[in-house]
Amino acid sequence: MIKTQVYDIFKDSASFNEKDVTIAGWVRSNRHSNAFGFIELNDGSCFKSIQIVYVTADIENFDEISRLNVGGAIIVRGKIVLTPDAKQPFEVKAAKIDVEGHSTPDYPLQKKRHSVEFLREIAHLRPRTNLIGAAMRVRSEAAFAIHKFFNERNFVYVHTPIITASDCEGAGEMFRVTTLDVENPLRKEGKIDFGEDFFCKNAFLTVSGQLNGEAYALAYGNIYTFGPTFRAENSNTNRHAAEFWMIEPEIAFADLNDDMRLAEDMMKYVVSHVLEKCSQEISFFNEFMDKTLSERLVNLVNSSFAHVTYTEAINLLIPHNASFAFPVKWGSDIQTEHERYLSEVIFKEPVFVTDYPKEIKSFYMRMNDDNKTVAAMDMLVPGVGELIGGSQREERLDLLLSRMKELHLNEKDYWWYLDLRRYGGTRHAGFGIGFERLIMYLTGITNIRDVIPFPRTVGSAEF
Amino acid sequence: MIKTQVYDIFKDSASFNEKDVTIAGWVRSNRHSNAFGFIELNDGSCFKSIQIVYVTADIENFDEISRLNVGGAIIVRGKIVLTPDAKQPFEVKAAKIDVEGHSTPDYPLQKKRHSVEFLREIAHLRPRTNLIGAAMRVRSEAAFAIHKFFNERNFVYVHTPIITASDCEGAGEMFRVTTLDVENPLRKEGKIDFGEDFFCKNAFLTVSGQLNGEAYALAYGNIYTFGPTFRAENSNTNRHAAEFWMIEPEIAFADLNDDMRLAEDMMKYVVSHVLEKCSQEISFFNEFMDKTLSERLVNLVNSSFAHVTYTEAINLLIPHNASFAFPVKWGSDIQTEHERYLSEVIFKEPVFVTDYPKEIKSFYMRMNDDNKTVAAMDMLVPGVGELIGGSQREERLDLLLSRMKELHLNEKDYWWYLDLRRYGGTRHAGFGIGFERLIMYLTGITNIRDVIPFPRTVGSAEF
Repeated sequence: MIKTQVYDIFKDSASFNEKDVTIAGWVRSNRHSNAFGFIELNDGSCFKSIQIVYVTADIENFDEISRLNVGGAIIVRGKIVLTPDAKQPFEVKAAKIDVEGHSTPDYPLQKKRHSVEFLREIAHLRPRTNLIGAAMRVRSEAAFAIHKFFNERNFVYVHTPIITASDCEGAGEMFRVTTLDVENPLRKEGKIDFGEDFFCKNAFLTVSGQLNGEAYALAYGNIYTFGPTFRAENSNTNRHAAEFWMIEPEIAFADLNDDMRLAEDMMKYVVSHVLEKCSQEISFFNEFMDKTLSERLVNLVNSSFAHVTYTEAINLLIPHNASFAFPVKWGSDIQTEHERYLSEVIFKEPVFVTDYPKEIKSFYMRMNDDNKTVAAMDMLVPGVGELIGGSQREERLDLLLSRMKELHLNEKDYWWYLDLRRYGGTRHAGFGIGFERLIMYLTGITNIRDVIPFPRTVGSAEF
Repeated sequence: MIKTQVYDIFKDSASFNEKDVTIAGWVRSNRHSNAFGFIELNDGSCFKSIQIVYVTADIENFDEISRLNVGGAIIVRGKIVLTPDAKQPFEVKAAKIDVEGHSTPDYPLQKKRHSVEFLREIAHLRPRTNLIGAAMRVRSEAAFAIHKFFNERNFVYVHTPIITASDCEGAGEMFRVTTLDVENPLRKEGKIDFGEDFFCKNAFLTVSGQLNGEAYALAYGNIYTFGPTFRAENSNTNRHAAEFWMIEPEIAFADLNDDMRLAEDMMKYVVSHVLEKCSQEISFFNEFMDKTLSERLVNLVNSSFAHVTYTEAINLLIPHNASFAFPVKWGSDIQTEHERYLSEVIFKEPVFVTDYPKEIKSFYMRMNDDNKTVAAMDMLVPGVGELIGGSQREERLDLLLSRMKELHLNEKDYWWYLDLRRYGGTRHAGFGIGFERLIMYLTGITNIRDVIPFPRTVGSAEF
């Protein structure tokens, strides 16, 4: 069956005038008199629906069509007619309408606004709504933009492992992966014998592909990962999911400035791509989610991101401590309320905060000459707070080892990571960006559950 | 630091003649006399290395450079000089060489051929070899080609969930995901209380995103997934990994023929892309892995894939039963030896086998009118066997329900999947392609462990 995508008609409707087309899609609404009717048909190829006009004289099965319920699937053959004076720019004058699959009057998605909470209960149907339909298309285009950006720069895309036997970054928040009969596992000296497990040892779901990514950056120069990561955090918030996707580029012969330049370039590229490819979706979000969205996105593309050190940032925040739930002082973590204050009130644009106290950052970050701070950077954006976190990595073996000793990390667990410093180690840096946070930023949607198709959160793994 | 990528020089070396460049990379070999030396430097930006010439007169630290070990990281400033009469097309006459990171004489990757088994033990260093370096770059470009192919056709990329609470497709081969204290789980009436687990129920790693993908296809029309999937199969073969990536497109208002056309188009697109972008890598594989590789790939792009029904295929195979470990008869599974015989000996090109007996296929495949076979298709290719498996899905609720009853599947577990047939169900079809199998096909590499960066197999989750 040769179908025309509604997407293509919207791209160049003039060229379709008076053309015969076949369009297959789902009924969004259907109203009719005895003589004629209108169907709003969405084929999923783009945000907008197309209007189908059907009249008794032309359509054999007028009765069947006029009784069609919302959600039904039909195939329409007809002619495109431009309608410059009407609300919609064109419509299809139907010659034939075949019902491919009926719907019922109890179809959960009637033509009205549904709460996002209700839509989450029907996650299998919600991509058919304007809101979720638009969010997931932005998601798809943003993912493609990321691949395109890195491919154009000759970065190698690396699939780092999902299952990992190293619990480096905090086993407490990791999911165990096992094939043991957990009701009755084999035991040795009273304890479970993980030597009998699938991987012959403890295994978990990854929280980050960074360490593996570093190994590949030191072979290819520039690499990125884009895959799912997991946190078993028992926190039921708008911003946390147990399963989320992350992008982690890693660049060799590069320092923190190169890293920030890359992050800024990537953000501008992705936002520009989405503004261009998803203009209908962004207009919708701007109207119904966040009236400042379009302006915010255009500003990001045109601004030079601000830069400030952690120390400077703390000094800027201290005068406003009274307005924070958690007042700051040097050494304290910068929390979402502070991140948003910095980017929304003080800088009014994206801002990089750099050089954090080593105590609040990870062991692998490169020590600065002051021996107090590390070459870390967070990118904060208005409306979201931290969107990107990155650092230059400690490439000096002796400094890395002594930092690991301070933190009671076991050298043996990191033998191969340390090898990367023994054999041709170089300056290198990278960052991570949570993909769902990015989609929230791009759409104005405030709950992470509404930017991922089938969200996994505490107590919830439906569908 | 402004670096030139060796990749860019190879693309247009003439324009670099006599130009000053800065190149950062790793030493592949280093030989010298008292007066001058040659370094083969690889910067990871492309398969090929670049030759660096350094002479005592120009290089301050000649002694240090001449003693550099293989694997060391250096930054070279110098001039590109075309060398039309030499083996390599150009070289860099070094003006300055800075050592960024030393290596040691015990660096595991000396300039000689290493066994793939040895390389797997140093999976963190093996991307620096010709073999794995080329494989993972082909992997990266093939992934990009897949995204580009579907994006150009306006398919929506969907991230289906990794963690799933439904064990639809065979719990025996699934990994359990849990945050319970497995040594001491809370029990209720003697049994583990999975109500206390993170998702308040049993949870597993997905084996396929298809069912979720169908939900999205019935909203967007055309979608694809590309993500990791998992099998806890206890089989230690060259072709099975516990963790692998899969691409699963799903198309609505489409039948098995549309599905096969899409699969053929996708294969040709990806192979063409890789032939164009990875010509150095393919030449390498053709020389060292499989002398028929290039020819096989070019043939695929230029051939029309063959089509044969399962029944016809069995009839073609029966006369050759004496040569098979497992003789075939109607109703038996087609195994790798038969798949390869069909594509390599009988058809000598990729071939689609369609309409398999329902007993050897999944419950969701559409019943044919003969009531004995289903609208399934496998794509078999020379050298690999089955590369793609797909089907038209059963969209008729009554037929789907009766098939589920035959197979003792619980309707309640599939409530949302059945909903897709209740509300605007349409003809639809899709397929799955194992990404690692594809890379094996594209490179001639015969062990799946060598086409995925950090393989996970029975008993092995290192790195």
